[in-house]
Amino acid sequence: MSNKSDAVEKYRIGIDIGGTNIKFGIIDENNKIIGKSSIKTQVLLGWEKIIENIGKGVLTLLEKNKVPLLQCKSMGVGSPGVVDHKNGVLMYSNNLKWENVLLVEELNKYITIPTKLSNDANCAALGEAVAGRARGYQDVVMITLGTGVGGGIISDKKLFEGGIGGIEIGHMVLVVDGIKCSCGRNGCFESYSSATALVREARDAAIKNPQSLMNKIVKNDTGKINGATPFEAAKRGDIAGKKVVENYIKYLGEGIIDMINIFRPEIVLLSGGVCNQGKYLTDPINEYIKRHTYAGSRIHIPSVEVATLGNDAGLIGAANL
Amino acid sequence: MSNKSDAVEKYRIGIDIGGTNIKFGIIDENNKIIGKSSIKTQVLLGWEKIIENIGKGVLTLLEKNKVPLLQCKSMGVGSPGVVDHKNGVLMYSNNLKWENVLLVEELNKYITIPTKLSNDANCAALGEAVAGRARGYQDVVMITLGTGVGGGIISDKKLFEGGIGGIEIGHMVLVVDGIKCSCGRNGCFESYSSATALVREARDAAIKNPQSLMNKIVKNDTGKINGATPFEAAKRGDIAGKKVVENYIKYLGEGIIDMINIFRPEIVLLSGGVCNQGKYLTDPINEYIKRHTYAGSRIHIPSVEVATLGNDAGLIGAANL
Repeated sequence: MSNKSDAVEKYRIGIDIGGTNIKFGIIDENNKIIGKSSIKTQVLLGWEKIIENIGKGVLTLLEKNKVPLLQCKSMGVGSPGVVDHKNGVLMYSNNLKWENVLLVEELNKYITIPTKLSNDANCAALGEAVAGRARGYQDVVMITLGTGVGGGIISDKKLFEGGIGGIEIGHMVLVVDGIKCSCGRNGCFESYSSATALVREARDAAIKNPQSLMNKIVKNDTGKINGATPFEAAKRGDIAGKKVVENYIKYLGEGIIDMINIFRPEIVLLSGGVCNQGKYLTDPINEYIKRHTYAGSRIHIPSVEVATLGNDAGLIGAANL
Repeated sequence: MSNKSDAVEKYRIGIDIGGTNIKFGIIDENNKIIGKSSIKTQVLLGWEKIIENIGKGVLTLLEKNKVPLLQCKSMGVGSPGVVDHKNGVLMYSNNLKWENVLLVEELNKYITIPTKLSNDANCAALGEAVAGRARGYQDVVMITLGTGVGGGIISDKKLFEGGIGGIEIGHMVLVVDGIKCSCGRNGCFESYSSATALVREARDAAIKNPQSLMNKIVKNDTGKINGATPFEAAKRGDIAGKKVVENYIKYLGEGIIDMINIFRPEIVLLSGGVCNQGKYLTDPINEYIKRHTYAGSRIHIPSVEVATLGNDAGLIGAANL
């Protein structure tokens, strides 16, 4: 790859583009973050200016940490949206309002080291696989439960990118003709298992069941119901809350079984705010998938666990692209 | 890999284990089959004897074609069931009644060249990618519509195996709580899109609609209805037949969209008897997936086509493992 010795090129740069903030960091050979910073995304500036700001921000960070660019082996970028990882192009991002941006080429105007681009959910999975909860595993599925449902696949210790456009596990169907999804399809995994879906179901249930504890928890302001509300109510014996949680776990369980039957991971990781429920979420899910996984009595059924790196997963993963 | 020159090791051996027959063949550098033969599977003989027969059969085939084993670079085996491709173990096959058979190790007692094992659907996909309809493509999904639904994924020109146990795309769900599947789960892709499912739906519709042409086609013996019957009736304007075909295409279309959203192939291939319908099958499916694929207006939507190698796909694919 290079004439310089590996001992000199000991750092890598990771960039995690989000709708609100853009984070960047420098990691060492042990995937430890030795320095990081961030800027506001400021969508209105447009892609040229934003990428310039990223380039300059990274150079400033390197300087501050006394890391010469010569000691950086590579750079990776995680971005939301539809990505052409083979050519370093961000094909489309609704959050950023970007379309067919030659992100790698543009970024290399400021920092000229080998650079790769991938989807943000892929980067988070890779981060957890090299430095987080899935460290040491060869085959990993990570599912991010947020506004939508994203996912990343590690196969034989390498990120599995799929073809051009990237993996969109949130848009596999769980119910043909089911709940309308933002992607235009009906019944997607995302329409049942995102945090958005959990909140929608909890609000509906609270409104339909005025006596439900969920209403008391938010002092009858159902607009304040969040993903934790039905879990909290369920723990205190509330029947409507329990039903919301059970239903959420069932559909999430079905989506996870799909991922197991398709990818056969050794471990499945979940991330996102709903994971704060810890074992109240993972115990019933592990129970559910044991009953329904294909050839479950003859193969290893992976454990479903909570990811551990939090916001740093994307940064560390991007640096490992 | 070896001290012998590549020019000398110009052949590869492929073995395709089926429930009825076991086929083996020798292919050259251009993936042309230069000789093939087969034996009956004879499940009752047990795995040791069957593998011995395979080994001896391959040696006889080599002799007959005057190919010394020294000129064979590698051997590959495609098998039904749950496969540990990393260790060459057939973990479980319902058809063969085999459980945890060290297939590669056992076969190497008779033929000692580098040997790999994979799932039969994977081998068929690989065969089509190196020598059939998907030749020249980097990212391919192939779906086999038979008694069940199987699938193989080619990513960046390489077979994607997933983790231990192998890919089972037939057992991803299309409808949570849907039609009971043979795997124990409800609503699997297989329960809607296999040839078995098509025949089941056609028979039900024929019985419910005594005036349907489907009954005339089989002279009122609904036991004779097969996958072609509803298509034939539909072509002649039969409403019940049309409904069966439209429904089949809808669910198959949904499963294919899942595969596209997850793997982003450049082309999707279908194989199995129902593919004899040609454009009567693929035209409406291509129409369907255009309407529902994620980010469909911004990414390339792959064409759905019929595989071309037929029974040789598995053999050629196995030889390319």
